[in-house]
Parts: sequence; structure tokens; C-alpha cells
Amino acid sequence: MATAINSAAATREHLLRARAASETLARLTTGQKNEILFAMASAIEAAQGAVLDANRADLETCGLTGSMRDRLLLNAERIDAMADGIRDVARLPDPIGESLAEWTPPSGIRIRKVRVPLGVIGIIYESRPNVTADTVALAIKTGNAIVLRGGREAARSNQCLAGILSGVGGVPPGAVELLDSSTRDSVRELIQARGLVDVIIPRGGKDLISFVVENSVVPVIETGEGNCHIFVDESADFDMADAIVINAKTQRPSVCNAAEKLLIHAAIAPEYVPRIVKKLLQAGVEVRADELARLLTGELAVVPALADDWPQEYLRLCMAVKVVTDVDDAIAHINRYSTKHSDAIVTRNEVNAQRFLRLVDSAAVYWNASTRFTDGAEFGFGAEMGISTQKLHCRGPFALAELTSTKYEVTGSGQIRT
Amino acid sequence: MATAINSAAATREHLLRARAASETLARLTTGQKNEILFAMASAIEAAQGAVLDANRADLETCGLTGSMRDRLLLNAERIDAMADGIRDVARLPDPIGESLAEWTPPSGIRIRKVRVPLGVIGIIYESRPNVTADTVALAIKTGNAIVLRGGREAARSNQCLAGILSGVGGVPPGAVELLDSSTRDSVRELIQARGLVDVIIPRGGKDLISFVVENSVVPVIETGEGNCHIFVDESADFDMADAIVINAKTQRPSVCNAAEKLLIHAAIAPEYVPRIVKKLLQAGVEVRADELARLLTGELAVVPALADDWPQEYLRLCMAVKVVTDVDDAIAHINRYSTKHSDAIVTRNEVNAQRFLRLVDSAAVYWNASTRFTDGAEFGFGAEMGISTQKLHCRGPFALAELTSTKYEVTGSGQIRT
Repeated sequence: MATAINSAAATREHLLRARAASETLARLTTGQKNEILFAMASAIEAAQGAVLDANRADLETCGLTGSMRDRLLLNAERIDAMADGIRDVARLPDPIGESLAEWTPPSGIRIRKVRVPLGVIGIIYESRPNVTADTVALAIKTGNAIVLRGGREAARSNQCLAGILSGVGGVPPGAVELLDSSTRDSVRELIQARGLVDVIIPRGGKDLISFVVENSVVPVIETGEGNCHIFVDESADFDMADAIVINAKTQRPSVCNAAEKLLIHAAIAPEYVPRIVKKLLQAGVEVRADELARLLTGELAVVPALADDWPQEYLRLCMAVKVVTDVDDAIAHINRYSTKHSDAIVTRNEVNAQRFLRLVDSAAVYWNASTRFTDGAEFGFGAEMGISTQKLHCRGPFALAELTSTKYEVTGSGQIRT
Repeated sequence: MATAINSAAATREHLLRARAASETLARLTTGQKNEILFAMASAIEAAQGAVLDANRADLETCGLTGSMRDRLLLNAERIDAMADGIRDVARLPDPIGESLAEWTPPSGIRIRKVRVPLGVIGIIYESRPNVTADTVALAIKTGNAIVLRGGREAARSNQCLAGILSGVGGVPPGAVELLDSSTRDSVRELIQARGLVDVIIPRGGKDLISFVVENSVVPVIETGEGNCHIFVDESADFDMADAIVINAKTQRPSVCNAAEKLLIHAAIAPEYVPRIVKKLLQAGVEVRADELARLLTGELAVVPALADDWPQEYLRLCMAVKVVTDVDDAIAHINRYSTKHSDAIVTRNEVNAQRFLRLVDSAAVYWNASTRFTDGAEFGFGAEMGISTQKLHCRGPFALAELTSTKYEVTGSGQIRT
């Protein structure tokens, strides 16, 4: 109990500091913000030894193995990439102050809609310590204070990085606040801090995101799960379909824009199902198949797909294959089971392609390209805060512009309402 | 318990129907949607008698008096205004399908960002039955299904209106669903319906909005409270200041963009405080004043302003007056106590005006105009869904464009990620 009270008081301290810093940050010029960002990049490079020491301590106690351990790991190359990432953000245009519209309604008042910072951004994330540097850079560039709640396993790495970044000359005290990651209390306190925090961005697994969405009284940008589909239509170029399916499934299976499901048009199924299943198996992919697809795969080692496969995000070398009757059947299946992240059609039929692009209700819908392109850098945003799977505020990869709000500046000459 | 289960099941039925309708609505052309809207307007006019009967029954049982009763009241003129409002929405441009950006990153994929419907909009509101017609029109125009949860006191009026609107030819079944308003259960069920509803818009008093914000797991657009300020600067034109203060305070004191607080620069306070206080009293306004303002008002009948006056929204003919040392003192007071809705400066000093416009952190900030202009119609939006006092998704008056989301349509020629 005493700990809970101490934790709540400590979190509140952090948030009050961030709130105060947000006012100062909103007044910084583009030049001042960029100067801070370049200094942050240099500071991280200069403190490489300390960052590596802190990370080594995290690695020794984390108990993680395999890809989870790799996500936590820092090395000289990754630290250089972090610093370069901050410099990239410095070079991007500053959205703050941008005039989005300006008009004069009949009353004669002059209305200008202008971009302003959100205020205080709260981010809750897991293992990867580069998220600390990336998100701090995006927040500073947009004149926002940031409150970080990283993963317990990366506590020392994040503490070291946050200390370096917040200690750079010109950074207002409170602009970068790091919460205690040893218990879930700080998460709960952060998402209940209505009035002190303007938006919460959870980045991580399904459980973390559900917890935040269900318990936050602060507005949330949900990032998320990707149960992504590829539909190979009747008229698809098979070589192109092979390349897209194998790329989307195997190039990096642990990420949200990797494909999890493969839908194949019934007319080409007898030829294309065995062909692609063979290639998937050769690439080390576990293949689950619906009844019809299983019939078509003959001797190949496939597993029956069950009802709970269709809504599932595997995040590993596993793919479920289903035969559909046509493009509308594919669209219906996707709109029912997709997490509305990224879905693709491979086809030479433009009518079907346009129908698919228009009717699949997902953040990014592809025609003849891999779902793996749903990414801030690939979209040309220069950086990425996350990929929104909700429809409010922003949808899909989001970066600087989406870390802003707007305000109306109205100029009159004494107008009153009659 | 049995009732609770029945209520939950009934609400779920309504939401499932709305969800299904949203898919059909998203496919309607602009022409089809406008045709529906014109037919809705005519249907309301044709059913005037039935609407008035239902409204009379509500008025007889509501137990409301004064302005609350007036908000509930319908008459021939108000019904005509409702129908005209629907026709106005029909004539506005359709935001759906609008291409917001289009570009080709180095990979060669072609990205198009396009406006799409949100899906299902839930609206929770109080007495005024015209909100039913207004919001249904905005939802249909943007290809969204709408779930209405109106006030208990307007149950019969809303049922009659929703019945007319949903019965118009061409309206997909489920496009307009009205929830039971006899208990709060339906509110709770609606705001917990994550996955079925895409956004909740609460319109009403402070308690309703707090309840929704604190309990919703569906994203919310908070509309709201307006503790609006007017700062009369040292160089203000006193006649202009008089007109703006009296207009903003008295023209319609019960609405959120009415002014509640008056800040006066110390250098002009000896002359301007007694002058404006006299005019406010003459207009029937109760004046509360801080110590300095009270000293300056001499014999005038003012009440001392207490600490809890500054954050308060009166929504009636009451105004608190405070003397401040300069524009920065005014900005600091406003940023501390304002609900971030609408705040104004009256000044001839452009430097102070620009500083105020930039640094006051509110949805609408005015220079030499009344705060009463914060309104969708006055801003030229042709209609209004509400006035957002949060920073996410939209801020200030919002209408058609803000009832949309976006999606990325990506076209390639076989691109994969390397």
C-alpha cells in the first residue's frame, strides 16, 4: 500500500514536470528544436560505452532468448542507427505552425486553422530500446513533452538513454520523463492521468494494448495486431504471387505487417495451391489449410486449419490457406477476420483490384505489392511512431503530422453575434 | 437481472444491425445519399402531425420547466428548420472518396490516401430532439451508420423521428438505430461495444460527458464545457470591448461558447472596471469580482469572486471579473483555468494579439471578436456534430470531414521488401 502511494506520487511528479515542459516546448522555434535533436544524436554517440554497459546489464538479467533477446540487444551499429534516426527527424519539415486552412465566413471574421502540439504524449512499449530514442525525437520535433514507460527487461538501457537525451543542453526540464517499469502501477497511473496527458500510445503485444484500451481515460491511439491477408485472384501472375506471398510471409515473420493468411481463387486453386504450398514448406513455413486446399495439396505435409486460425496473428513462420469462390468471397472473409491492418490482392483484373481496394476495410490495402510496405519509412514519412489500427485521429503508419492537434485563430474587427 | 440481460441483448441487436448497415452505407454513391437526405426532409415535413403529437406527450410527462422545457419543445417552425437542416447537409460536398494525398516512394509503389467512413457512430445526447435529425443527416452523408441514445425526457419525440428517418426508401435497415432511453444500461452497453462501434460522441452536461469518458472502451470525441474568457487589454477600444463582452455574456448565456470570465488589464482597470460592470449589471448579469476589481466598483452591487469561481462554467447570466497585470498574466490565468474551448483578447496592440493567439491553448482563440462565433454554422461548415474540447482527432466545431477516417490504397507491379 505504501508502495502504491509512493508509486502514484512519483508518477504524478513525472507527469506534472512533463505538463510544465510542454508549455515551454510549444514555444520553441524549429531551429531550436533541430539544434536539440542534433545535440541528442551526438550525445548518444558520445555515450556509447555507457549505453552498451547498461544494455549488457539488462541482457544478463532479462532471461530472454532468441528473437526477444535480439530485440533488446544494442551494439555499436544499432546505437549509430539510433543517432542517425534522430538526425533524420531533425531534417524533416516541422509541422508545427503550419496553416492548414484560412477563410472568411459571411460575418467577416478571419479564421485560420493551424497545427499545434498535442501537449504531453505517453508511450508504453516493450523491449526495443531504440523506441526510446525514436519517440523522443518525434516528440521534440513536434513540440510535445513525452512520458516513457518502457519494458521492465530494458529498464537500465532506457534509463541510460533517457538520461542522456534529457540532459542535452536546451531540453526543458520535464520534456523527457521516464516512469518506473518495475510494476504495472505506473502504466495504470499514466493511463488514468486525464488532464495531464493528451494521448497514450501503446506499442507492444495484444495483452498490453487491450489493457491500455480497456482502462485508459486518456485518448488512445491503438497500434497493433496484424492478421494480414493475401488474395491470389483468378488472373494473378503466378510468379508475382509467389514472390509477394513468400516475401510477405517470410521476410520478417515477427512483425505486424507480415502476412498470416492466403486466400486463393477456386478457379486457379488446383494449380496454384500445390505450387505455393510447396514453396512455403520449402521456406520453412508451417502450412495450415482448409478442407479444399488440403485436398489439393495431396502428399504435402499440411495441417488442417481450424476455426480459430482465421482470426489469429501467428507472428511466426505459419500461414493458413483457404480457397474462396471469387473476389467478393475474399473481401467478405477479410472484412470478417482481418484486424484491419494490411491486406493485398494479386490480380491482373483491374475491376477486381479496384473493388478490393475500395471495399476491404483496412488501414492499407494493396494491389500487386507485399503487405510488408505498411511502414512509416517505406511510406516516406522518414520516421514512425507506430501503425494505427483504429479509425479515429489517424490510421496506418503515423509520424510527425499525427503527433499534432489544431487550433482556430480567429481575427475580427469587433464582430458580435446577432 | 433479467432486465439487464434483456437490455444487453436488445442493445447488441441494435449494434449488430448498425454494423451490417455500415457496409452497405459505405458503398452508396453521393447521389444515392443525397436522394435519401432529400426524402428524409420531406418525410419529416409530411409527418409533422405525428411528430408534434409525440412531442406533446413528452412535454406532458417530462416535468421540465423554463429553458430545459424549451429545449425539448417542437413546433411547426422547428420541424421545418429540421427538414431544411437535412437539405442543407444534402447540398454540402461529400467528403467520402476524396483523395487527400497521392505519392510514389522510392520502392515504386503508388500510395493514395483516401477518405472513408468511420463505420458506426454512437451518439449520446440530451433533450433537444432536433439533434436526432441533424446527426442522422451528417451520418448518412458520410456513409456511416448511427446509433442514437437520446434523453429519456424526449423518448417519444426521438422514437417518432427515428422511425420516420429510418423508414425512408433507400435507407439500409440498421442505418439509424435508436436505443432504449429508459435506463442508463443502454449507455453503458453502447460505450463498451468495442469492435461494433467506431466512435462515441457524447453531447450534454458535464456529468454525462465524464461518465462516458471514464467508462468508454470505444474511442470518444469529447464535446464540452466552455469556461470562456475575454481579456480586455490596455489598448482596447472600450466601445468594442463593451459590445464583445455584453454579446459573449448575454446573447445566449446557456451555451458553451458564452463568456464566463472577464480579465481586465490593470492599467485601464480604474476606468474600465466600473464602466463594464455597470453595463453588465444593467443587462441583468450577476457580477463576481476579485479583490481589486471590487475596490474599483465602489457602490456597485458586486459579489466577491471565490477560488472556485475561476474554473467554473456558469451557463447563466453570471460573470467573474479579475484584474491582471498584462497579457502574459492573462494567458497564464486562461491556460490554468480555461476548459480550452474559446477565449478572446480585445486589443489594438498587434504584438499582444499575436502572442495571445499563439499561446492560449484553446480550440478557438479570438482577437477582437465574440467567443460566440465558435459554432459549425458560423465557421461555415454548414452543419455541426459538436464542438470538440479534446486534442485528438479534431478540435473545435466539427462536422462532415471529422466523421471520416482515411485508408491507404497502394498499387504496385509486384514490389516486395528487400
